[in-house]
Amino acid sequence: MTTPLQYHQGGKIGVRATKKISTRKQLALAYTPGVAEACMAIQADPRKAFDYTMKANSVAIVTDSTRVLGLGRLRPEAALPVMEGKAALFKLFGDVDAFPLCPGTQDKEEFIKFAKLASPGFGAINLEDIESPKVLEIEKRLEKELDIPVFHDDQHGTAVVATAALLNALRVTGRKPEDTAVVISGAGAAGIGIANLLLRHDPFKDIVVCDTKGILEPRGANPWKDAIAKRTNKRRRRGTLADAMRGADVLIGVSAPGIVTRRMVESMAARPIILAMANPIPEIMPADARAAGAAVVGTGRSDFPNQINNSLAFPGILRGTLDCMARRINTKMLDAAAEAIAACVPRPTAKRIVPDMFDPKTPAKVASAVARAAMQAGVARKGIKDLKRYEKTVAKRIREARK
Amino acid sequence: MTTPLQYHQGGKIGVRATKKISTRKQLALAYTPGVAEACMAIQADPRKAFDYTMKANSVAIVTDSTRVLGLGRLRPEAALPVMEGKAALFKLFGDVDAFPLCPGTQDKEEFIKFAKLASPGFGAINLEDIESPKVLEIEKRLEKELDIPVFHDDQHGTAVVATAALLNALRVTGRKPEDTAVVISGAGAAGIGIANLLLRHDPFKDIVVCDTKGILEPRGANPWKDAIAKRTNKRRRRGTLADAMRGADVLIGVSAPGIVTRRMVESMAARPIILAMANPIPEIMPADARAAGAAVVGTGRSDFPNQINNSLAFPGILRGTLDCMARRINTKMLDAAAEAIAACVPRPTAKRIVPDMFDPKTPAKVASAVARAAMQAGVARKGIKDLKRYEKTVAKRIREARK
Repeated sequence: MTTPLQYHQGGKIGVRATKKISTRKQLALAYTPGVAEACMAIQADPRKAFDYTMKANSVAIVTDSTRVLGLGRLRPEAALPVMEGKAALFKLFGDVDAFPLCPGTQDKEEFIKFAKLASPGFGAINLEDIESPKVLEIEKRLEKELDIPVFHDDQHGTAVVATAALLNALRVTGRKPEDTAVVISGAGAAGIGIANLLLRHDPFKDIVVCDTKGILEPRGANPWKDAIAKRTNKRRRRGTLADAMRGADVLIGVSAPGIVTRRMVESMAARPIILAMANPIPEIMPADARAAGAAVVGTGRSDFPNQINNSLAFPGILRGTLDCMARRINTKMLDAAAEAIAACVPRPTAKRIVPDMFDPKTPAKVASAVARAAMQAGVARKGIKDLKRYEKTVAKRIREARK
Repeated sequence: MTTPLQYHQGGKIGVRATKKISTRKQLALAYTPGVAEACMAIQADPRKAFDYTMKANSVAIVTDSTRVLGLGRLRPEAALPVMEGKAALFKLFGDVDAFPLCPGTQDKEEFIKFAKLASPGFGAINLEDIESPKVLEIEKRLEKELDIPVFHDDQHGTAVVATAALLNALRVTGRKPEDTAVVISGAGAAGIGIANLLLRHDPFKDIVVCDTKGILEPRGANPWKDAIAKRTNKRRRRGTLADAMRGADVLIGVSAPGIVTRRMVESMAARPIILAMANPIPEIMPADARAAGAAVVGTGRSDFPNQINNSLAFPGILRGTLDCMARRINTKMLDAAAEAIAACVPRPTAKRIVPDMFDPKTPAKVASAVARAAMQAGVARKGIKDLKRYEKTVAKRIREARK
């Protein structure tokens, strides 16, 4: 059997030459003198970089190594295995050429500067494993100061897969969003991202977010939490996570292992939905949640049904974003991605609320939905006429990338 | 026929996943939770990054876009086609995973900071197309401040191929280094690199370097030129390039198109050697040089015999450097590379002083010679026991990379 360390031996990605250079003529095209024509075309019009370089298909995965998995602050080299894994997933699930950059700084301004300097060579930035709330400011700054999309998977990707899982879980339990009371445990980037996406996904009306201190209130501690506190908790409740969960229909956990008890689940509305996504140990184990009456349970783990994994979302989202040359990734695009993932399971059941992540049709449908939303929102710089055909092309590309 | 712009469509490199992720089990190894073991191993000992990430085989190609080909200062995006071409050559001629970084700055300190921040993810840095003398200071600073080798192809690679060509040209014309008067036209990074390498390659004794103002003298204008001026021109001559060439055996040009006349070649010693490497138009065209009596002529061009091209050198040099985990690339390693390239042509003739750059055995021999020199000089962190076998493995890797 392969041990994890054996699997990672030599790393998980490499570079590939996509054009032949096996004759002097090809060398003269690829390098001097032929390459000068591509350089001059781009010098005259920088948008041509999307035609004559890898930019149109490339994503920088950038981390400051402050929140790597659940391991916390690491050296940049120690974050690299995760970033390479992400790059491999981008390739195999989206045919996106993603490359890891682990700048040796944990200083916010230095990190922003670095990402900005690196950006000309890439079609998008993917922020990864940066501690919150720092990452929220980094994202906002980069989004404002760069002309390429900035994606933050821990926030946006998690929000998309959680929303997709929730939509299907609602169908399984016969609920409508407008009558559903949702509690989110965790007010880091993931929790804030989920709240933001649900608030935009009409019409969730009853959302309460909790952090370690209990139900979020505008306490002036952190502008991101305050903004969410003001837009959620309509009934102005106060108290602990246990208080928030009493009578609620849904718990979405992006917080800490084991913090939800059977009793807390028992206090919820009948047949509640539990999406306990803390990794690797969920907020409550599926068997306990079911024993306490939960009708649908999802986790982030591969060894239980309903694995709510970001790999369902980010490859397709970036695929679609790059293909329509979107200027940014907005909430409508994320929402479209969530709907597309949910729709991949036509008849959801308690044991199947999310699609098979290894099916290339899933990222293809996500890409197509994201591109459509980008075009409708007017953020696409390039139109895709036949989206059905596009979807098939993407699935084919992904199959090729896996060979 | 493919036009240059068509050839560059979509860029020339991509990312490749080197491990399979087609089952949940593999996903759990590649990403969370399996990847945590690799992270923690590297956190405990950063040298393990050479085992469990792509670092051991990866090179960052970094440019500030101030001297791209002969095109001068360009936008970072416009430099990208050259950097991608270089990355493709690294792959196809050395099986090295090189990735282009074109930071959007032409400020020296910002550039140094960027390269330092990027370095943890890479096994070596390749500086590319940066104006001189700025690049010489950047190289010196990075070499001092980083723990991975810094290679500067415009300087070191050019010096290696020029020296290799010169060694064989001397054999063709029956000269010995110690009796040979060499003139170098050009005192940028390439000219300084060549002078430095020839000075170390025993025993060239008579070297004169010229810049646009003529024979180099310590004028206090530029510390790099002054240092070279002090170590060359033993007879303390003064005057123009034409004055320097009078009676000399060899002209190595890394300067400007057409600045050498027939008459200047005629003024040299009998049967002189002309390596006119200005690109794409050499200092003197081969037909003119031969008509003026030159016995051996080389240029940088593919449409004349004796193409003195850096692709003969840099892929093998970095291959060997990475494989023995050298701490730096020193002059002995460069000298060994030059000797190895020259030795690839057992019986040099006037029309063949350099080997076929498409033969995978060339970079394999260079890699082996560089690794041997690194081990002898004590800069290798990893030993290679059987260098003959290693050479064969490298040639095989390169053949595989071209498939």
